[in-house]
Amino acid sequence: MRLSGRDADAIDINADVGESFGRWTLGDDAALLPHLTSANVACGFHAGDPTTLRRTCESAVEHGVTIGAQVGYRDLAGFGRRDIDIDAADLEADVLYQLGALDAIARVAGGEVRYVKPHGALYHAVNRRAHKARAVLRAVVAYSEVRGAALPVLGLPDSQFLRFAEEAGLPAISEGFADRDYLDDGSLRPRSEQGAVLTDPDAVAAQAVELARSGTVRSLCIHGDTPGAVGAAAAVRSALAAAGISVGPFAAP
Amino acid sequence: MRLSGRDADAIDINADVGESFGRWTLGDDAALLPHLTSANVACGFHAGDPTTLRRTCESAVEHGVTIGAQVGYRDLAGFGRRDIDIDAADLEADVLYQLGALDAIARVAGGEVRYVKPHGALYHAVNRRAHKARAVLRAVVAYSEVRGAALPVLGLPDSQFLRFAEEAGLPAISEGFADRDYLDDGSLRPRSEQGAVLTDPDAVAAQAVELARSGTVRSLCIHGDTPGAVGAAAAVRSALAAAGISVGPFAAP
Amino acid sequence: MRLSGRDADAIDINADVGESFGRWTLGDDAALLPHLTSANVACGFHAGDPTTLRRTCESAVEHGVTIGAQVGYRDLAGFGRRDIDIDAADLEADVLYQLGALDAIARVAGGEVRYVKPHGALYHAVNRRAHKARAVLRAVVAYSEVRGAALPVLGLPDSQFLRFAEEAGLPAISEGFADRDYLDDGSLRPRSEQGAVLTDPDAVAAQAVELARSGTVRSLCIHGDTPGAVGAAAAVRSALAAAGISVGPFAAP
Amino acid sequence: MRLSGRDADAIDINADVGESFGRWTLGDDAALLPHLTSANVACGFHAGDPTTLRRTCESAVEHGVTIGAQVGYRDLAGFGRRDIDIDAADLEADVLYQLGALDAIARVAGGEVRYVKPHGALYHAVNRRAHKARAVLRAVVAYSEVRGAALPVLGLPDSQFLRFAEEAGLPAISEGFADRDYLDDGSLRPRSEQGAVLTDPDAVAAQAVELARSGTVRSLCIHGDTPGAVGAAAAVRSALAAAGISVGPFAAP
Repeated sequence: MRLSGRDADAIDINADVGESFGRWTLGDDAALLPHLTSANVACGFHAGDPTTLRRTCESAVEHGVTIGAQVGYRDLAGFGRRDIDIDAADLEADVLYQLGALDAIARVAGGEVRYVKPHGALYHAVNRRAHKARAVLRAVVAYSEVRGAALPVLGLPDSQFLRFAEEAGLPAISEGFADRDYLDDGSLRPRSEQGAVLTDPDAVAAQAVELARSGTVRSLCIHGDTPGAVGAAAAVRSALAAAGISVGPFAAP
Repeated sequence: MRLSGRDADAIDINADVGESFGRWTLGDDAALLPHLTSANVACGFHAGDPTTLRRTCESAVEHGVTIGAQVGYRDLAGFGRRDIDIDAADLEADVLYQLGALDAIARVAGGEVRYVKPHGALYHAVNRRAHKARAVLRAVVAYSEVRGAALPVLGLPDSQFLRFAEEAGLPAISEGFADRDYLDDGSLRPRSEQGAVLTDPDAVAAQAVELARSGTVRSLCIHGDTPGAVGAAAAVRSALAAAGISVGPFAAP
Repeated sequence: MRLSGRDADAIDINADVGESFGRWTLGDDAALLPHLTSANVACGFHAGDPTTLRRTCESAVEHGVTIGAQVGYRDLAGFGRRDIDIDAADLEADVLYQLGALDAIARVAGGEVRYVKPHGALYHAVNRRAHKARAVLRAVVAYSEVRGAALPVLGLPDSQFLRFAEEAGLPAISEGFADRDYLDDGSLRPRSEQGAVLTDPDAVAAQAVELARSGTVRSLCIHGDTPGAVGAAAAVRSALAAAGISVGPFAAP
Repeated sequence: MRLSGRDADAIDINADVGESFGRWTLGDDAALLPHLTSANVACGFHAGDPTTLRRTCESAVEHGVTIGAQVGYRDLAGFGRRDIDIDAADLEADVLYQLGALDAIARVAGGEVRYVKPHGALYHAVNRRAHKARAVLRAVVAYSEVRGAALPVLGLPDSQFLRFAEEAGLPAISEGFADRDYLDDGSLRPRSEQGAVLTDPDAVAAQAVELARSGTVRSLCIHGDTPGAVGAAAAVRSALAAAGISVGPFAAP
């Protein structure tokens, strides 16, 4: 599917934002957002109270960053990182609810939800369990229809989730992780192993350039809740510029 | 403000629905909905899980019943009936979040959120605390703007909330309670007193006719979570028909 | 382990109670409790607000019914029926928290938590995942130590959970389901199949007598949230009495 | 009521801890605890997941710090800082539930809940609304009875809450705020005014010494969630030592 008006060669930079909740702050969204082209905004189920979502969307609009819905399991205590054996119909309705909630806030802020990225355990579950992938995608397709435009979804390259998304007529955007170590077979080094997460900004920047040049991914993900995330994001932007790689969102803000 | 295409003389019948949550069922929405012209659907904060909201919206669409957003405090344990001293900005964002969530579900079901009614403690708070009324209304106005149509709000006749709503350019719909006893000064008999709630279907029906004839209200509210609610709703419809009073929603479905 | 002072031949009758939440009522605890010898009281994570727990414990004490802690996943929306891939340390702390909360309420009501039964998805997870069984049992052992008495746990006959419990020095109480159909191999007929749940009180009562005579179980479970549960419980008590089978709790109230 | 074995002249230092929740960290409990004599541990309703509570209690026991239950409203989104118009019976049950939950965790960690301090909006509500003060105190009295020892409560000097506590037979411990500015009439400068919160460690330490010398309070409260809280706590300890004021808990750990 064509994403008209976008620079097809530009690489996107996405990160999770809007994950504070009430008294609890997570990440430095205000400092991180200017370095992004796409903002995965939490939707309240795994993180993100409505006031945080609103402030985050306003900041994204201000910086011209595209807003995406980071949908997750209803599990504040587990931050959406624990897989939940949820019924497909319930998952579909949960995703729809989150999409509408964030979109209302985004639109009032002058933006709009322009893509969808499952969060945490759901991000992995949609590749392991077909019924979960299809449930999430049914919600995205249904909401795309009332919105009158197919919402792209973000996921792992060559994954079940992106394959099903294409079958469902949704733009499938593959992403790589600038701050995670890859094994030779292209899979991520498990977090339980030494060196799974890259923390040196130069190493993150170098991997970002390599991923962008590889042509295997359309977007680069940076984790916003790690210490030094803002510095790493800035280093990525500088390194991509130095390498002559243009940066831009896959979906217009 | 003109509600084009509506019968200005018809009386509306509204009730709270969609208030089940997960394993817990409340009210008999399937039986009650056919007797209504407007359905105040819960939005998940005081009651209503997304699957329940979806089923309720689908049923409302099937019966041609207008869908409204019954927004409330975030308090499942208290069912939104305990006043919460919430910050105005947080209340505004909470209402916006709920409006968007329900509207996404309503639209996928083939309907749309067409009006807003605060629930429980918030229903009363918007008449007692100006900053809460204005916070709710700012959310409704903001969402009306992105929707391109002013969403009416439901409230007590001659109330602060409806007065502020009109000042904000929103249609203000006054409602009466068919199943609550009124004192001579027009106020509701407190629930702590004997006879505050009418349970005899004939008495409810008679009061409905009286309220409709009085011309003081545009809508009649029936409580859906009381035993006998369905019978009372049926009795109200019959009595209004027998009295030659036409019944219809104040906003098109 | 000897349960001193108990009639070792008596059969126990347990059911889930205390599963209402705020405005939402589930089951008819007041009517069911007099038919039980053991009450599995919810602890607030899958169901049961503190006021409900208190009223339920008071009613159990009044009827001389032994109080047990029905611990579950933190998931009100899913009623604890969705498996959650929770960390062992978190599960252990969650169970400990629930045990203490219910015990405080039980003791103020004049009783005490005298046994533990995992609820819903956790009931099955402790037989499928060793780390979950051990996490729950570590919490029960730890709380038994501060209480100065080993708390029995309820589970399926010949199950991993009961085997681990015995290894941990806890009394392991096996239970059968009076209202579920068993296959020839002794396993439960899956709920997806016709006839999985027995609804005829006579059939439930007959199966209760058969299970009690078989000597394979120490307790009979009746589901309290199904229509007709109270009638079934009464029928079970009558049938056991008619068959000359004595009824009594496995742990003193 | 005598607090046997305690140094009646020693001043106590208390602070809120255990207020992280899942992925969200608040305050630096590990660094703050060694400077305290009493730790107000959250109980899960306004903050504090069970794993956090357990780690916090273990740390308190390790440092010989007395554990208290910081009970609050059930409101994670509002961090217990929004007043909730809760029914007295529900508040009483909520407090009892929290006391038992934390006590189980504290006892397994080798400690015990030794006092109670209401949190946030509830801290103020118990001085403004008599029925709330009495509801909290009924829970503390009831739990004191099953525990066999009267649990002290912490509050403002000369306050309704402490007066009611004494009437109920509970030790009433008055506290001052080392890091809040006082007006001439002894009341706290409202947070809305400039200079309401002292941030300079020397100023905090000087006020701590002054409050301790005044003899009006038995405990000094330090806010643990402000930047510089650990430095302020250290400065308070040094200044009290330099002034020859002995420091010690009002209740044995």
